Amino acid sequence: MQITGTQLIGSQDIPGTGAAFHAIDPATGEALPPAWQGADAGLVDRAARLAEAAFASYRETGLEARADFLEAVAQAILDLGDALIERAMRETGLPRPRLEGERGRTVNQLRLFARVVRDGDWVGARIDRALPGRTPLPRGDIRLRHIPVGPVAVFGASNFPLAFSVAGGDTASALAAGAPVVVKAHPAHPGTSELVGRAIRRAVQRCGLHEGVFSLLAGPGHELSLALVGHPAIRAVGFTGSRQGGLALMRAAAARPVPIPVYAEMSSTNPVFLLPGALAARAEAIARGFVASLTGSAGQLCTNPGLIIGLDGPDLDRFVRLAAEGVGAAPAATMLTAGIARSYREGVERLHGHAGVEPLARGAAGQGPAPCQAGLAATTAEAFLADPAGLGAEVFGASALVVRCASPEELAAVARALEGQLTATLHLEAGADDALAAGLLPILELKAGRILANGYPTGVEVCDAIVHGGPFPATSDPRSTSVGTLAIARFLRPVCYQDIPDGLLPPALRQDNPWGIPRAER
Amino acid sequence: MQITGTQLIGSQDIPGTGAAFHAIDPATGEALPPAWQGADAGLVDRAARLAEAAFASYRETGLEARADFLEAVAQAILDLGDALIERAMRETGLPRPRLEGERGRTVNQLRLFARVVRDGDWVGARIDRALPGRTPLPRGDIRLRHIPVGPVAVFGASNFPLAFSVAGGDTASALAAGAPVVVKAHPAHPGTSELVGRAIRRAVQRCGLHEGVFSLLAGPGHELSLALVGHPAIRAVGFTGSRQGGLALMRAAAARPVPIPVYAEMSSTNPVFLLPGALAARAEAIARGFVASLTGSAGQLCTNPGLIIGLDGPDLDRFVRLAAEGVGAAPAATMLTAGIARSYREGVERLHGHAGVEPLARGAAGQGPAPCQAGLAATTAEAFLADPAGLGAEVFGASALVVRCASPEELAAVARALEGQLTATLHLEAGADDALAAGLLPILELKAGRILANGYPTGVEVCDAIVHGGPFPATSDPRSTSVGTLAIARFLRPVCYQDIPDGLLPPALRQDNPWGIPRAER
Repeated sequence: MQITGTQLIGSQDIPGTGAAFHAIDPATGEALPPAWQGADAGLVDRAARLAEAAFASYRETGLEARADFLEAVAQAILDLGDALIERAMRETGLPRPRLEGERGRTVNQLRLFARVVRDGDWVGARIDRALPGRTPLPRGDIRLRHIPVGPVAVFGASNFPLAFSVAGGDTASALAAGAPVVVKAHPAHPGTSELVGRAIRRAVQRCGLHEGVFSLLAGPGHELSLALVGHPAIRAVGFTGSRQGGLALMRAAAARPVPIPVYAEMSSTNPVFLLPGALAARAEAIARGFVASLTGSAGQLCTNPGLIIGLDGPDLDRFVRLAAEGVGAAPAATMLTAGIARSYREGVERLHGHAGVEPLARGAAGQGPAPCQAGLAATTAEAFLADPAGLGAEVFGASALVVRCASPEELAAVARALEGQLTATLHLEAGADDALAAGLLPILELKAGRILANGYPTGVEVCDAIVHGGPFPATSDPRSTSVGTLAIARFLRPVCYQDIPDGLLPPALRQDNPWGIPRAER
Repeated sequence: MQITGTQLIGSQDIPGTGAAFHAIDPATGEALPPAWQGADAGLVDRAARLAEAAFASYRETGLEARADFLEAVAQAILDLGDALIERAMRETGLPRPRLEGERGRTVNQLRLFARVVRDGDWVGARIDRALPGRTPLPRGDIRLRHIPVGPVAVFGASNFPLAFSVAGGDTASALAAGAPVVVKAHPAHPGTSELVGRAIRRAVQRCGLHEGVFSLLAGPGHELSLALVGHPAIRAVGFTGSRQGGLALMRAAAARPVPIPVYAEMSSTNPVFLLPGALAARAEAIARGFVASLTGSAGQLCTNPGLIIGLDGPDLDRFVRLAAEGVGAAPAATMLTAGIARSYREGVERLHGHAGVEPLARGAAGQGPAPCQAGLAATTAEAFLADPAGLGAEVFGASALVVRCASPEELAAVARALEGQLTATLHLEAGADDALAAGLLPILELKAGRILANGYPTGVEVCDAIVHGGPFPATSDPRSTSVGTLAIARFLRPVCYQDIPDGLLPPALRQDNPWGIPRAER
């Protein structure tokens, strides 16, 4: 498939009229052909109107048809072959194994949602049968199902050009819910985005769906994003990116004549608590794992462990020494864009220049326009508690801060001072650390969407029980997850039918349950 | 129990320092003792901090303990005896049978949520077992449960002094979710609110719960409401009231440093579509039922049928004539407050004075400071479509507008022009009206949370399958319901636990499932 630099509006390729831009190879700074012209407000309107037109039929697709479509998208992505991986490598600087793994995750995610669609649990069907003899008043027949909220705008993330982008988790869960999707591609990987967009379009066509089920817009600026979120046909938003970007979308969505929900996954420092028993038993192994988790993908992961919190003492010293050695030995890496590399460099400089912070190590300095030089620093709980916003702020990239605590009470105080997080990690030793862990868990539950033990927060499983979400500012809405099957719930709303004749009910609620889905009946 | 005019802050009675106010008997204008002094910002802070302090223990109450508490609240309300009904009659002008029925509903609702708590479905437990042999990477043990979002602020509604007030649906569902509640009483029925508040407090004490599980604030102005929604310890808001009030809370919640969800149930005209077959078969019965639904409780119901839409012709004429007779014969009623009566009078005058509207009937004019004179008017689809915001606006009270449509296409166009609604009703005759109904249903599903046939929208069942919600501006959030067992979901968020040792897991997720709750395991 060719990359043409056009906008994919339903089944049509339409050139934009907005500002021109190229993908840039972050390793070399080279502009990659072709040139794009950004989508304008007219194309936003066409894509959103098409999505609205597609909504009527797409939201009532049967379980099999919708699941088949998700599987067809997965297959069409695989059919792109190595051209997809090669383009993504050029556009993102990410290495081949990472991108091949991410493609597998993207495809598996689509197939997982196909299973979810077929299971039919997502319908959340409930039936309260009529009680004609009830006194003082009879009860009618009342039936509930969930329907999609309407067309969804999805914003591709910079750091997952496949799994959190055009056919990523937001798109997969919205399509599974029965919502047409308009994606705004991340401008750092427009070619990768176009290839995947064409794969989705091919699946739409193969499955005989309305062309408006999917459109792809690309453009460099914020205006396009705000026009999309402000469009009356758009009914929900999925976003993964910076806090600044997420907050802007939240404001725009709340200011609409009809406000809509925004699911923005924004920023997180993913605190890791090193409890004394665990440190005593295996400081070396923990440090090794930490350095690998911190520096993989140049640290450009939402769940990157940016904050390490431990009780002062020789075992923590040992961990710090080993971690500093590991970070110092970290090779230079290429970041996704020159802008991200600049923000990273400024963030590390600000952190390492903070009065309360002791710089511990820097990795190898890199070449090219978007180098990542890993960084490790330390501070005290006292200094952290004096400036939790400053020292707790995410530095997107391979930078972490160790917070030395003088007592278990200080450790708990640091936990309480944290902002909302995607994850919180405990390294603990059964028995020795139980009391401390039991005291921390109730605090961390209120701070994070996922709590893990004796592991690292990077590498998020895509499964039924995962939560990739958490209290603000980690996300805009802690009642949801953007990874895993529960993500479908974000794009659904309940509707109930009272005394509607059976022939007029949707299949999910008919007397004979033609879809064979689970229904809670009373 | 005495009504003292104090604020109920946990276990303490504390006088406010804000503006003084009384309850007013809307039938006579008489000020009812005692006097209240409104809660000030200091009391908001005390109540919210107490709720935060109670959250740690209350959110981890076992299923039995929490269910027992809800049942104890129900019993304590019944123990108030007739004093509650008498006070509510004086404060609201609502008649005894209505208030006795509402008390029954309030008590049953609490008991229903006790059942929900015991069932344990609300935990939404999911378990993905470890796959240690998976390649290329093993999977950890991942377990998900839902926990409450935190303390909830509930705003009592004017029109349901019991069922949507201090111990109403919002409070019952929040307490069921494990969230402490701070209620702001509606200033129109502070004595009723205090009695119910004391009943809840008694249940808190009997069950040995932390006093901060419940507090009750009262005050006349908006400052108190905004202080409560802005308090950092408050994590969600339940509100039933005017659109203006709901929008103000939404703005305040979005502007917080940490935004929080607002579940505001605001306004709805509850369109009723009279299809030709049904009108031909039983215009008389439909008109009778409509007038009863319109005028009951002086029309002061969120689901009051304010918009009647039918195909022009002799059958619709017959309905209109009979409905006009019924409305014309409607006795005067007392509204909840003089302010509501004034808004109602102005709303009817505006509607009946609209250039495109033909006034059809007025009921008996009332006496006293808060009279409700029922009203019926008619317009054409053409006029409605020219000003859907003006003619589709809710007039809170016993006023309705008939929209005459020249064709099925116009009927569908009116449906499409509607704002978001709590309900939409179809009167239909099997066979004759099937095609028209089948065309309307997909439109109405996107407009309303509940669709009913051959009935009236007033009289909302409290059950598992009910939805009392709907797209903006009917509510602030169409993904939820404020009536029925699904309402508990509003106050929950998912948290997942990865590789946490069994002894540190919450009971809901432990290996041996000590709570015996349903869990989705893979």
